[in-house]
Amino acid sequence: MKILECVPNFSEGRDEKKVEEIVAEVRKISGVKLLDYFSDSDHNRTVVTFIGDPEGVKQAALRSSLRALEGIDMRTHTGGHPRLGAVDVVPFVPIRGMGMKEAVGIAHQFGREFGEIGEVPVYFYGEAATDPRRKKLADIRKGEYEGLREKLSIPGWEPDAGARTFNPKSGATVVGARFPLIAFNVNLRTQNLDFAKRVARKIRESSGGIPSVQALGVELKERRMVQVSMNLTDYRRTSIPKVVEFIRAEIAGTGVEIAETELVGVLPLEALEDVVREYLKMPEFTPEQVIETHLLEE
Amino acid sequence: MKILECVPNFSEGRDEKKVEEIVAEVRKISGVKLLDYFSDSDHNRTVVTFIGDPEGVKQAALRSSLRALEGIDMRTHTGGHPRLGAVDVVPFVPIRGMGMKEAVGIAHQFGREFGEIGEVPVYFYGEAATDPRRKKLADIRKGEYEGLREKLSIPGWEPDAGARTFNPKSGATVVGARFPLIAFNVNLRTQNLDFAKRVARKIRESSGGIPSVQALGVELKERRMVQVSMNLTDYRRTSIPKVVEFIRAEIAGTGVEIAETELVGVLPLEALEDVVREYLKMPEFTPEQVIETHLLEE
Repeated sequence: MKILECVPNFSEGRDEKKVEEIVAEVRKISGVKLLDYFSDSDHNRTVVTFIGDPEGVKQAALRSSLRALEGIDMRTHTGGHPRLGAVDVVPFVPIRGMGMKEAVGIAHQFGREFGEIGEVPVYFYGEAATDPRRKKLADIRKGEYEGLREKLSIPGWEPDAGARTFNPKSGATVVGARFPLIAFNVNLRTQNLDFAKRVARKIRESSGGIPSVQALGVELKERRMVQVSMNLTDYRRTSIPKVVEFIRAEIAGTGVEIAETELVGVLPLEALEDVVREYLKMPEFTPEQVIETHLLEE
Repeated sequence: MKILECVPNFSEGRDEKKVEEIVAEVRKISGVKLLDYFSDSDHNRTVVTFIGDPEGVKQAALRSSLRALEGIDMRTHTGGHPRLGAVDVVPFVPIRGMGMKEAVGIAHQFGREFGEIGEVPVYFYGEAATDPRRKKLADIRKGEYEGLREKLSIPGWEPDAGARTFNPKSGATVVGARFPLIAFNVNLRTQNLDFAKRVARKIRESSGGIPSVQALGVELKERRMVQVSMNLTDYRRTSIPKVVEFIRAEIAGTGVEIAETELVGVLPLEALEDVVREYLKMPEFTPEQVIETHLLEE
């Protein structure tokens, strides 16, 4: 059975009625399960998470995004989070039984349909990017909604799909595909924040650490510990055990120990495969050996 | 979502057509997923495994068992495996979202319905036993089909449900509930079979080891290793990590190492909870953090 996730970000986080209307469109689609939605009124933004069969998820994304276009007017939008449009970002995430290529295909289909029906310029980012300069969301979003009219006229920033010209009410939408992001923290039994920051610097990809790891050193005041707070952006390249063992090796001999670890939110079953294989020395383990997975096959 | 498993054992392992007829009854029930069926012609016995919602699983067990009564005649049955009847054993196993008490309730319901409709004496065993002397399958099965007519007349061996008298065609059926059994092996990097046997003796419950562990020492000739081959009969009492760490402590200092471990067949997701909690030091982990589980809730 194929499972796709979609995590659209809408530029409305204050008007509860409008948010509920958007989310209701997801609930309507059979075969799609709404996992979560969260509005931040400072950001004036709502993040919705749902999973299901790829076609259903695409439909749910389309219906909720078109509903968002009706209710949101970017001309009056304010909020602390960078954004380009009413439907700001729509990432598709392959969870099970499908690869990145298929998720990219869905992202492209969605982007073209949504851009055309909604008359919104669409940029493809992440694994769905058509140009290396469009890989990073932050690069596309530079200048934000306020700079969008100008950006659209700059050679090299023509949209990938949808309207070619500025849509003042709706702005633009960034559509993409990415691997599931695992928010994973390792808490260290010390109160030395610099220690956590040093470990974070050692492990994160951007400062020469290991691939697909973003990391920050954070203080946990109440717990009297420090934390290496991480995003694993591709557990297929860098697994949870690899991260734990890297940190364990890094702190060996310092007298500091791993107190505990935390998972924030959810992960795909496949991401536990490496945990079982590594720590139980069980090279042959597959997620299909988890009995519940057989009920997903229908 | 509740998931129940049923693993009936039928006394027919040679006539493929009869086996297919029995299995077909399971396939008919919606909401029930046939995981496996396996016939052994020496034992002249077929083991069928299916899971699903409790009511569907009870129905599938009833329909397949009644079909088995039609096709199997114990008066002509021969085979290497001990057995009491055509539908020999019907264990119900709580997998998810339900406890043992509820599984016992289903076993009792099934036993009464099946015993009455099929006119077969039914004994309840395992967690469903009504008498401590009927806890163990082997005790109930003692004397086998050939001794059943006599057994039924012995005070204390009145059936728990169904027919009170001997049914020559069908024998008797043992119905019960038990925890999921995890077949888990630890391979040791030595060719010394006695070593594996010593470890097995140390760990197994019956020789004073740890609860809910059955263990044997086995030779793996081709792989030039030995194995502690185990059944974990209640992972809630004794988890996989507990078993691994017990063995690790037991062999410490002997120079022998754990080469690898194996899982034979499937396990419930819940049984991996302890693996994650223990080896990642992640005390807060719950199986609900596995994204796929949310598709089981419908």
